[in-house]
Amino acid sequence: MIDYIRDGAEIYRQSFATIRAESDLSRLPADLSQVAVRMVHACGMVDLVADIAWSPNVVADARAALRAGAPILCDAAMVASGVTRRRLPADNPVVCTLSDPRVPGLAAELGTTRSAAALELWRDQLDGAVVAIGNAPTALFRLLEMVAEGAGRPAAVLGIPVGFIGAAESKQALADNDLGLEYLVVRGRRGGSAITAAAINAIASEEE
Amino acid sequence: MIDYIRDGAEIYRQSFATIRAESDLSRLPADLSQVAVRMVHACGMVDLVADIAWSPNVVADARAALRAGAPILCDAAMVASGVTRRRLPADNPVVCTLSDPRVPGLAAELGTTRSAAALELWRDQLDGAVVAIGNAPTALFRLLEMVAEGAGRPAAVLGIPVGFIGAAESKQALADNDLGLEYLVVRGRRGGSAITAAAINAIASEEE
Repeated sequence: MIDYIRDGAEIYRQSFATIRAESDLSRLPADLSQVAVRMVHACGMVDLVADIAWSPNVVADARAALRAGAPILCDAAMVASGVTRRRLPADNPVVCTLSDPRVPGLAAELGTTRSAAALELWRDQLDGAVVAIGNAPTALFRLLEMVAEGAGRPAAVLGIPVGFIGAAESKQALADNDLGLEYLVVRGRRGGSAITAAAINAIASEEE
Repeated sequence: MIDYIRDGAEIYRQSFATIRAESDLSRLPADLSQVAVRMVHACGMVDLVADIAWSPNVVADARAALRAGAPILCDAAMVASGVTRRRLPADNPVVCTLSDPRVPGLAAELGTTRSAAALELWRDQLDGAVVAIGNAPTALFRLLEMVAEGAGRPAAVLGIPVGFIGAAESKQALADNDLGLEYLVVRGRRGGSAITAAAINAIASEEE
């Protein structure tokens, strides 16, 4: 037998203690600090905290929306897969429309990526929703266009796409939005489905 | 309209070109280099390459196993969710047993995490499989124990769990294995389901 910790609760406790000891969480509001700990936990990098940017009410508004039953709209199946259903306060719908059979046609028609075109199928749920974009910069850009066009305003937008083309720019555009959107981003290239799902899980329940 | 690239193929092309321009791929064998590009793409960090460690035949053996129909055994639903089914050469089964109703009981009985206990349900598929561990260090430790106990030998092990407690150590144990396991790891705390699924997707198909 190899010597390692087998107690899941103890692993969580030590993990979160290590993150709190090594991260500079002092610049974050208290409610976001707890969210940041889970985001760091999902990626193994304490320096992620320095790249987090936010609007003042993002955690409170997202949490209130979830408690009121708002859906969670995800750009990628991995984000939806990472949302821990038992943490959700109102058995909230977790929606990812990317694999809908209408999406390839919409993408061709709109001249955009499937990830962006999939947002067309969010229109009847967008207003008041919690949006979790953890993969595609084009989805985040498209969300900003749709909100600007009057498609409805989400309660909060977690905009944490990852990558080299458009990721940093789309997150900057969200952080600069003049649409009144509450937002949480990770500046730069880093992000992804695990960090995004971790943020949702932390917002959904204050339980560690 | 915001100005951004909407052509998915062009986004991939520019992303991979950026990664190749900024990464030091020279230390990697050719087949692994293509895998590393996708791993970097999944996390947005070109310096990930420096932490990749491998055994010489891991890509070739994993690829051959997949072509022969081997299952992909995943420790987490997010890893399984990230495997692009249309890239798989033999409609390979993608297996994650973590949510099997027997797992909580097995975990209590074995005194370990659910992630580790879920591997008990891999026993009839383990020999010759491609294992993709992208979340739980305890799953990777348990895999090494099971192989040492004679449960069968996977064709290749992608051991890329993430985190603060046991992640670095479990990956080191895999890299140090004297069981004849072909392996691919990311040393240290970094890793996760997206990087792991990206590695599987690159191994499954050489198409960019």
